[in-house]
Amino acid sequence: MAADATPSFLYLSTLPAPGSRFELSPEDGHYVARVCRARAGETAEATDGRGALAVLRLIEVRERVVAEVESSRLEDRGPRAWVLCGAPEGERADWLVEKLAELGIERFIPVDCARSTWQRARERRTRWMRLAIAALRQSRQLHLMGVEAPRSLAQGLGDLPGGAKRWLAEEDGQRALPDSRSLGELSVGLVGPAGGLEGVERALALAAGFRPLRLARARLRTETAAVAWASWWAAAPP
Amino acid sequence: MAADATPSFLYLSTLPAPGSRFELSPEDGHYVARVCRARAGETAEATDGRGALAVLRLIEVRERVVAEVESSRLEDRGPRAWVLCGAPEGERADWLVEKLAELGIERFIPVDCARSTWQRARERRTRWMRLAIAALRQSRQLHLMGVEAPRSLAQGLGDLPGGAKRWLAEEDGQRALPDSRSLGELSVGLVGPAGGLEGVERALALAAGFRPLRLARARLRTETAAVAWASWWAAAPP
Repeated sequence: MAADATPSFLYLSTLPAPGSRFELSPEDGHYVARVCRARAGETAEATDGRGALAVLRLIEVRERVVAEVESSRLEDRGPRAWVLCGAPEGERADWLVEKLAELGIERFIPVDCARSTWQRARERRTRWMRLAIAALRQSRQLHLMGVEAPRSLAQGLGDLPGGAKRWLAEEDGQRALPDSRSLGELSVGLVGPAGGLEGVERALALAAGFRPLRLARARLRTETAAVAWASWWAAAPP
Repeated sequence: MAADATPSFLYLSTLPAPGSRFELSPEDGHYVARVCRARAGETAEATDGRGALAVLRLIEVRERVVAEVESSRLEDRGPRAWVLCGAPEGERADWLVEKLAELGIERFIPVDCARSTWQRARERRTRWMRLAIAALRQSRQLHLMGVEAPRSLAQGLGDLPGGAKRWLAEEDGQRALPDSRSLGELSVGLVGPAGGLEGVERALALAAGFRPLRLARARLRTETAAVAWASWWAAAPP
């Protein structure tokens, strides 16, 4: 869609109440004034990443940009999905995070496995949160993907709520179409790291209720399997 | 899967007949001897990227690596998919090509659209072919994805065979699950460029039999939509 066809879309972690006037951050102000070339009197949209969609009226667009919140409503999230993901090879995590956020995943949970760990994830988390915000803005979504701290696979499995439906991406799994009965309110996809899960880890996942799911004819890299699972989930009828 | 659990897997654009001995290229020799640490007497596998799977016996693994083709069989491709894709923003095409190849797409066809063209695709095609070969080896696939030369959207639509099933990735499309009746032998996904298709282009696609398909709740970047469509197709039951 052309940039000029739709109003600017902002992420504001704290969204002022309707009727409030506030000054946009320099970054958001630049985006509104320079990138979107909006003018005073025009509207923009904003979300807090937790389901709110606000309509803003631009009061002043100069050195500083001032907006007033005209209205705000909360949208229901609908079905949710989390991805538990082992570490991919090299620098492949950046676009993995971006794509999961675009596809509407609620939580990205890096899990350390025997064959590969998220050694560099600690320093990358801030960067990934920025990528998730950029994806939210790009896709005009109202829910910001959470980028969680890495944890052990056992801890990641233990943290899951009881009612969640669970799939393990696996070359030898069963094919299945995502349907509303099998998906439920919360779906969790588990993807092994580069090198794959070890036998004990796989047994742990199966014991935790994960069902092997085959996403493609060939074996997929970690990051590809995670995005393919997210696409599989996202394409499900509502 | 651990590298030592499976035999080396090579791409040989011309695969010698069973019984033949031949010397591997320096690159393949290095891969077999140094990366996979194979030894003389062990086996390796190879494909020509056109459906053949050959078992090789390693005869000599030293400065040079010599193999003999023990057997070769042709595997049926099964359902096929092509992706007609407008140009994404920036440098996003590399991973797009890699992911489509992993997911088993048969042909990647870049199409020039009114709002964005594949200006740099001509110089990139060799690189993309290398990425497709790397993905084939990584996924141990027997069919190499074709990376086609860019063409106009009209040309791309005109080149499609009559029986192909056609989907247009679109934010406002219908949701649909991929099933064997709707997919057929050849499925084609069309994804607009960054900036989207223009109205005339969209009308052209609809007139050519493309059905709008919604892949996710939010709007997706070009390269994300292409990979999501390929994942949607790849997850279909056989």
